Amino acid sequence: MPKLWNETIEAHRRTVHDAILDATVELVRERGLLAVTMSQIAEKTGIGRATLYKYFPDVETILVAWHGRQVAGHLERLSRAGEHEGDAGQRLEAVLETYAFIHQQMARHGFGPDLVALLHRSQDVGHAQHQIHALLRDALSEGVRAGAVRDDVAAEELAAFCLHALQAAAVLPSKDAVQRLVAVTLGGLRAR
Amino acid sequence: MPKLWNETIEAHRRTVHDAILDATVELVRERGLLAVTMSQIAEKTGIGRATLYKYFPDVETILVAWHGRQVAGHLERLSRAGEHEGDAGQRLEAVLETYAFIHQQMARHGFGPDLVALLHRSQDVGHAQHQIHALLRDALSEGVRAGAVRDDVAAEELAAFCLHALQAAAVLPSKDAVQRLVAVTLGGLRAR
Repeated sequence: MPKLWNETIEAHRRTVHDAILDATVELVRERGLLAVTMSQIAEKTGIGRATLYKYFPDVETILVAWHGRQVAGHLERLSRAGEHEGDAGQRLEAVLETYAFIHQQMARHGFGPDLVALLHRSQDVGHAQHQIHALLRDALSEGVRAGAVRDDVAAEELAAFCLHALQAAAVLPSKDAVQRLVAVTLGGLRAR
Repeated sequence: MPKLWNETIEAHRRTVHDAILDATVELVRERGLLAVTMSQIAEKTGIGRATLYKYFPDVETILVAWHGRQVAGHLERLSRAGEHEGDAGQRLEAVLETYAFIHQQMARHGFGPDLVALLHRSQDVGHAQHQIHALLRDALSEGVRAGAVRDDVAAEELAAFCLHALQAAAVLPSKDAVQRLVAVTLGGLRAR
């Protein structure tokens, strides 16, 4: 018997849930946000429409759930980067680089402004951005205490600077270009 | 007789055109993008609906025209800043500061992501952003030649860094905070 049958119902639900998110995002990528229907999603996931509706009421809710899963993954990657070995400056660099690469990867997904606008109406997204901001602010404060980051501008404002500057990674073509962006951003943060 | 009557028809048309844009933006600010109708716009502008339709087919087209007018104004402000007296470094600083203040002001208009998504579907907006990018890249290249800007990263990439970093002005509360943002951004550009 396949192992799946031995798992709990909760684990099975989680598998179906994740398969729905993946199928939906793939369809949106192929066809655009407005062209995707619940029937197509059910078909691509390999479940019935009635089952799909037990999980989600509409396409928008699925995409918000997908984005929530993405952001949770990003937060985990950023937290891990913040535990990087070395001094405060190296940890800060690891966090900034991770954030920049996340943005480069997101841009490669090629989502249009429709989807971005939809997701930004979601409260969860605002909450996640707040967490990312807090994580970065803490890494910057640690850098200030260690003398690696300038202390003439509040960590709060430096975090806003970093978050925006590193989003330029979305328009950069290569990994090298992203690393140069991180170096330039760090140049702005440096204690003088 | 009021002076208006002596003006050419073209000038009259321009006045009505601009009044429509202003009325529409004010209504969108008050009520949100989806709640605004052509009838409300005609009423607020003080013209008939039939006249309004001679100028614009729908609300979306009016908003794109309004945004085009805004961006033309921004480009003019940036060009003037680029002709600032002083050396290349001072001119660059003037351009960066102008761009940051433009973003702070735009954020205060309080437009939501719906409108942003709508405007970003417009080709004109892409063209204008390209012009702003080119203007900044030229100011940076001038800075590199003068030894004021680092030469280890292409001006093209530095321009992307600046444009994104300075958009943080949208979340900053004061003029002083924007000037600190410009200082931090310049720190990243500095030749070492």
